[in-house]
Amino acid sequence: MKNTPYTRLDRDNAAVLLVDHQAGLLSLVRDIEPDRFKNNVLALADAAKFFNLPTILTTSFETGPNGPLMPELKTLFPDAPYIARPGQINAWDNPDFVQAIKATGKKQLIIAGVVTEVCVAFVALSAIEAGFEVFVVADASGTFNALTRDAAWLRMQAAGVHMMTWFGVACELQRDWRHDIEGLGALCANHIPDYRNLMTSYHALSAANP
Amino acid sequence: MKNTPYTRLDRDNAAVLLVDHQAGLLSLVRDIEPDRFKNNVLALADAAKFFNLPTILTTSFETGPNGPLMPELKTLFPDAPYIARPGQINAWDNPDFVQAIKATGKKQLIIAGVVTEVCVAFVALSAIEAGFEVFVVADASGTFNALTRDAAWLRMQAAGVHMMTWFGVACELQRDWRHDIEGLGALCANHIPDYRNLMTSYHALSAANP
Amino acid sequence: MKNTPYTRLDRDNAAVLLVDHQAGLLSLVRDIEPDRFKNNVLALADAAKFFNLPTILTTSFETGPNGPLMPELKTLFPDAPYIARPGQINAWDNPDFVQAIKATGKKQLIIAGVVTEVCVAFVALSAIEAGFEVFVVADASGTFNALTRDAAWLRMQAAGVHMMTWFGVACELQRDWRHDIEGLGALCANHIPDYRNLMTSYHALSAANP
Amino acid sequence: MKNTPYTRLDRDNAAVLLVDHQAGLLSLVRDIEPDRFKNNVLALADAAKFFNLPTILTTSFETGPNGPLMPELKTLFPDAPYIARPGQINAWDNPDFVQAIKATGKKQLIIAGVVTEVCVAFVALSAIEAGFEVFVVADASGTFNALTRDAAWLRMQAAGVHMMTWFGVACELQRDWRHDIEGLGALCANHIPDYRNLMTSYHALSAANP
Amino acid sequence: MKNTPYTRLDRDNAAVLLVDHQAGLLSLVRDIEPDRFKNNVLALADAAKFFNLPTILTTSFETGPNGPLMPELKTLFPDAPYIARPGQINAWDNPDFVQAIKATGKKQLIIAGVVTEVCVAFVALSAIEAGFEVFVVADASGTFNALTRDAAWLRMQAAGVHMMTWFGVACELQRDWRHDIEGLGALCANHIPDYRNLMTSYHALSAANP
Amino acid sequence: MKNTPYTRLDRDNAAVLLVDHQAGLLSLVRDIEPDRFKNNVLALADAAKFFNLPTILTTSFETGPNGPLMPELKTLFPDAPYIARPGQINAWDNPDFVQAIKATGKKQLIIAGVVTEVCVAFVALSAIEAGFEVFVVADASGTFNALTRDAAWLRMQAAGVHMMTWFGVACELQRDWRHDIEGLGALCANHIPDYRNLMTSYHALSAANP
Amino acid sequence: MKNTPYTRLDRDNAAVLLVDHQAGLLSLVRDIEPDRFKNNVLALADAAKFFNLPTILTTSFETGPNGPLMPELKTLFPDAPYIARPGQINAWDNPDFVQAIKATGKKQLIIAGVVTEVCVAFVALSAIEAGFEVFVVADASGTFNALTRDAAWLRMQAAGVHMMTWFGVACELQRDWRHDIEGLGALCANHIPDYRNLMTSYHALSAANP
Amino acid sequence: MKNTPYTRLDRDNAAVLLVDHQAGLLSLVRDIEPDRFKNNVLALADAAKFFNLPTILTTSFETGPNGPLMPELKTLFPDAPYIARPGQINAWDNPDFVQAIKATGKKQLIIAGVVTEVCVAFVALSAIEAGFEVFVVADASGTFNALTRDAAWLRMQAAGVHMMTWFGVACELQRDWRHDIEGLGALCANHIPDYRNLMTSYHALSAANP
Repeated sequence: MKNTPYTRLDRDNAAVLLVDHQAGLLSLVRDIEPDRFKNNVLALADAAKFFNLPTILTTSFETGPNGPLMPELKTLFPDAPYIARPGQINAWDNPDFVQAIKATGKKQLIIAGVVTEVCVAFVALSAIEAGFEVFVVADASGTFNALTRDAAWLRMQAAGVHMMTWFGVACELQRDWRHDIEGLGALCANHIPDYRNLMTSYHALSAANP
Repeated sequence: MKNTPYTRLDRDNAAVLLVDHQAGLLSLVRDIEPDRFKNNVLALADAAKFFNLPTILTTSFETGPNGPLMPELKTLFPDAPYIARPGQINAWDNPDFVQAIKATGKKQLIIAGVVTEVCVAFVALSAIEAGFEVFVVADASGTFNALTRDAAWLRMQAAGVHMMTWFGVACELQRDWRHDIEGLGALCANHIPDYRNLMTSYHALSAANP
Repeated sequence: MKNTPYTRLDRDNAAVLLVDHQAGLLSLVRDIEPDRFKNNVLALADAAKFFNLPTILTTSFETGPNGPLMPELKTLFPDAPYIARPGQINAWDNPDFVQAIKATGKKQLIIAGVVTEVCVAFVALSAIEAGFEVFVVADASGTFNALTRDAAWLRMQAAGVHMMTWFGVACELQRDWRHDIEGLGALCANHIPDYRNLMTSYHALSAANP
Repeated sequence: MKNTPYTRLDRDNAAVLLVDHQAGLLSLVRDIEPDRFKNNVLALADAAKFFNLPTILTTSFETGPNGPLMPELKTLFPDAPYIARPGQINAWDNPDFVQAIKATGKKQLIIAGVVTEVCVAFVALSAIEAGFEVFVVADASGTFNALTRDAAWLRMQAAGVHMMTWFGVACELQRDWRHDIEGLGALCANHIPDYRNLMTSYHALSAANP
Repeated sequence: MKNTPYTRLDRDNAAVLLVDHQAGLLSLVRDIEPDRFKNNVLALADAAKFFNLPTILTTSFETGPNGPLMPELKTLFPDAPYIARPGQINAWDNPDFVQAIKATGKKQLIIAGVVTEVCVAFVALSAIEAGFEVFVVADASGTFNALTRDAAWLRMQAAGVHMMTWFGVACELQRDWRHDIEGLGALCANHIPDYRNLMTSYHALSAANP
Repeated sequence: MKNTPYTRLDRDNAAVLLVDHQAGLLSLVRDIEPDRFKNNVLALADAAKFFNLPTILTTSFETGPNGPLMPELKTLFPDAPYIARPGQINAWDNPDFVQAIKATGKKQLIIAGVVTEVCVAFVALSAIEAGFEVFVVADASGTFNALTRDAAWLRMQAAGVHMMTWFGVACELQRDWRHDIEGLGALCANHIPDYRNLMTSYHALSAANP
Repeated sequence: MKNTPYTRLDRDNAAVLLVDHQAGLLSLVRDIEPDRFKNNVLALADAAKFFNLPTILTTSFETGPNGPLMPELKTLFPDAPYIARPGQINAWDNPDFVQAIKATGKKQLIIAGVVTEVCVAFVALSAIEAGFEVFVVADASGTFNALTRDAAWLRMQAAGVHMMTWFGVACELQRDWRHDIEGLGALCANHIPDYRNLMTSYHALSAANP
Repeated sequence: MKNTPYTRLDRDNAAVLLVDHQAGLLSLVRDIEPDRFKNNVLALADAAKFFNLPTILTTSFETGPNGPLMPELKTLFPDAPYIARPGQINAWDNPDFVQAIKATGKKQLIIAGVVTEVCVAFVALSAIEAGFEVFVVADASGTFNALTRDAAWLRMQAAGVHMMTWFGVACELQRDWRHDIEGLGALCANHIPDYRNLMTSYHALSAANP
């Protein structure tokens, strides 16, 4: 008997929820250092774009101290549903948000946000209760410190959330490099410095030995 | 199938148990540094006050080396049930303590204390056996070192405890900022220095650009 | 539904298994620093003695590089069953060891040893299969590094082992300080330097203010 | 009730899968330092050889930036099935790979690879779905950082994977030192520097005191 | 021969410089966690007040993203010279700042600020060149990460800066508890949680044994 | 007496040396995580460009395993002297490299490279011997691990190197924000995610309150 | 030219100063974990006894929250000068303390205490000014956290203090094992668990092969 | 003025001292993990061999618990002077050891050993007093923990020791890859797994594109 059996992400059945990646709230994130965290969030966003997944943006009190959504996300998803919540902490309590999710017709939800134990965990747990399959992108979600994060992970694991990170999400959606070698290669090169180095060396050497 | 399905904290159905936050025992806490730990305990206490949750205090051998309860807790909850246990290590073995809990009529117990694997875990595990829903506030609970804490967390997770931290507890109880924007804002500003900084900058700029 | 419901240690129903705490093997332990690890092992042994629990010692190839059992353990338990295994890595594969356990008539096994993922985990997992309730003393068990330990803990947690540490074991067995205040106090003072400091200050001040 | 009951590795029923230990991909591994990781991979390979387990090698785009398989693995297993996947990220999606596994007739799969959350986790999770017993060798598998690894471990634990490390695998397969004392001793001496030191001292002293 | 011989802080000859502790810039500080850092800055400020040292405040672009000075500092030092620099990064390049320092007539400068390698180090190094004795309060100064801090410390040490922390500064200024036992005691109790615990236990026990 | 008195970087008297930031060698850097390291190197390069400092590039065996220079550096400095060393490990042993430095007429050398204790330290130490003032950019230089880095830092500090990081270099060169507020602001926004967040919030709020 | 040339500890010319190892103050020590710290202090004390060095004890406000001296130190040095300072923070400001030191006629001072940056550093720096050779026992001295310690070390190093640890002190005083093999062996066995293990294995094997 | 000016290692003027790398003592080394430490020691030994440097071996009580010299070192340097010290802790106190050094006629001493603050530091400091130029190989020297190491490094730095690591030593001795490309390449490939990976990928690609 297994607690959370394997459920594979399916690009035809998945949507992405980006919850409260706001300029002010980002200053609260201290369990992942800022260069890496910024990269992870943008990597997930680029993956959502690359796989053409329906993506839903939501924020909390954008005009107050929490600050506006990361501008890069607005730019990447200009036509995405954008729910500026008037007060609900758990975005799932906002009917527009849930409606936008249901409108996608997808059953798999890929979730990331700030802070992990609130904006991410509440949505993830509610989505499971509502019958969705939930995949939390742990490294594109941040919070105050490692202890807080670890507690949130255990709570989510116990409830049946699939704990993942952006690269695993991208690879599970891609399934086969042949679906678009150039596309996945670009995603890796732009967001994994070590992989870019491999490609730089490879291409230089290939060019030198045609 | 899920091990521990989502149970949302409900301000109308929750009580807070603060177990053995005593001046002597606090010197044993080394898995969280003292500035942060003091802040976390007081943040949880302020949250209990803010949400007007029934709160129960208990101590072990206050007149011996374990020392008196943190004075701030006494001050915050002058009328709370206060059970100075004559010897029981697991507070659940003290009938007055259990009686005080049952007298609240609440089914959700929010628990924090020192040390995590004893004063917290024993109560938490007993409460689950007794049919309560149990939410441990991991960052307002402390112990000797990270290894000890990690083992205690795994034991509690396996038994169905909801692992949380004080900010998650506060947000899950609040549900919607509109219930009391000023109140939750003050709680955040007083206990999250980064959030206070955000508010300071916001208010200064708002004042400068009326 | 819970994965591993609360089972309380019961001094009338518990035995202690100390597996391969041998002088050579101790040099392999690097996930806990040596001052602390030595203290933890002796604390568990003193607790076993204090609660008068049947204790079983076993070793692997004592006359080879693994080296002899820690002399302190031999001294503490001169009459304990002592199984020098001729080759079985999992002590549960040794009939004398299992026989010694069954001879105690206890159903709760408190287990510690070196190294965690082998000498401890194999016995713990086998004991569960054999119908025992198993409590691993994580901080009196050591191994090569934290990564190895973490994997072993997850395997044991998933199989239903109660993950504990020596202080939790002692407190759960004691139940109530009044069973023997002096005894438990001495155990704490000898193995928790911070607690000894509390007692030193307390007694000095009490003596000064009679 | 237990989530993942004890299943013992059985040398007559186990096969080893080494997934994508390629020279380029190894530069991505940063959750284990390189001296240790190289040692762990070769230790697992030597163990597979020692126990004469059917071993299957697979790679992804060996002629591109991912680079060729570690030469030591090619040398150790010259006749092993070697599946150079044309594009499948999850090796289980490659029919030749699954066919090679089924051809072994074994029901227990010991899996290691790079990177943990993709090349290892995908295969492990698929294998469980396909009815195999799965043992992931966590310290012979590597990935970008500890956070990524921890998420992958929780996902695999929840799905019923047995989380192990190379030394535990070797000991569980060996069962009894007497099956081949010299062989297991050599494996330990070659891959555990502390154990080699014990043997060096032991043999010197034995020689001096014949 | 000594590089930097002992120079004792002298309360009659010391001034305090607080450089750029601004709400926005504080979000850049990640080498010290925020609860502790806030406490350290306020502890230094309280010490400056307690010893009645001339204190000088300076900021950089308060009306922009750097944000306003921490309000607590404004409140503590309402009459202190306050130099809002129009652009100089090194405050020593601002004539008003240097003039304010010289006006104190003190030769010992106690410096803290954000970020360590710029706002603190530049002033400290310039002050040494100008003939002052310089004491940097390392734990009331913060920066991006530990690596950045370590480099800044080595540069300052090599130039003759006395590397100190707030408690050392307070104790060196106090010289003898008898100068004001209550005052120093309050400073410690307010900013060292462990010390407050000691005092709580002490006073409770003293009261109980009059 | 001071070991290394303050020497301020002067934009009219400084040159930048970028040593061996090659795609292959970058995979050796493990004392700084890759997202941050890549950012630091590009931040230093952008600063060199912003301050229009003469910049010199050098590499070691670009056509072998060390791999080509990071392409971004080639793009940023298309006309910079570029010395592909035929074998000298210490670039200072290459007459063309030293000649290129002397041709700049600058006396202050800002140095970064891979690996710290060789490619950076050798050049830095040689430059001091040759009479230059040397500023090592510690966070744009990387090596195998923290221990190696720490030893290299102590050697360089003892020899009179100014240990700095890229942000300190940029600020010391800038001296006054008014020299080019937009330019320095862009440098910060592009390479300090926390600072970009501050600017995002500030501009949004300013726009909302015109 | 050297900053701090080699000065060898000489058992005929050295005295030991133990400063403020008091039960209350020990709870402030968090840069070294308590099992190790207690061991280090007692190891240094045992070494002082073993080499028969004049040893001086001093405390600060023993009857207040700082608590009494560690009882073990009182027991080990019943006849040592014992200066209970009435208020001086820097023990060197207490004439009795300095007089006791001068009465020993020794020129080398071995110093340890709590907390490092105050009770230790102040005495060490004053002693250098007074013409003594000063050896700080870094691992028998403790303070609030690693950052505080590191700053204190840099200040002391810059002033010419010899930074040592207890084992180095013992070995430099011993010079040659032949002075007392049993004595130094016992010191090592009692305070270095790894060394005790080596001896246990050695003696067992020697006994088995006479 | 510089504390320790640059002195370049010169293969015609350097000797290597390997001090007490004994099987028993190696179990004391806990500041570097064992896979890495073993590799570092052998890398230094291989470098000494490669550059044909006179190498001197010494041990302390080889027939007791300290155990025999690492067999690999005996094998590599069968004809090296080998001083089994009868009791001197500081090898420099052994006339045969100093005589062996002087017999080499070299003025630069490259030193590594176990433990850092005793066997290495004492020899290094004595050698400086005796007029030698001293280069300590920090990563081929080990001790109890990082705190002990850090103190030893500061003492050695202050006395004028050049703090280095094995790769820096090898590169400074080599000066120019052209002296022996194959030789240095092999040294790197055998002791830097990341570098071996680079070479594996490079050669595979070169072979594929002839």
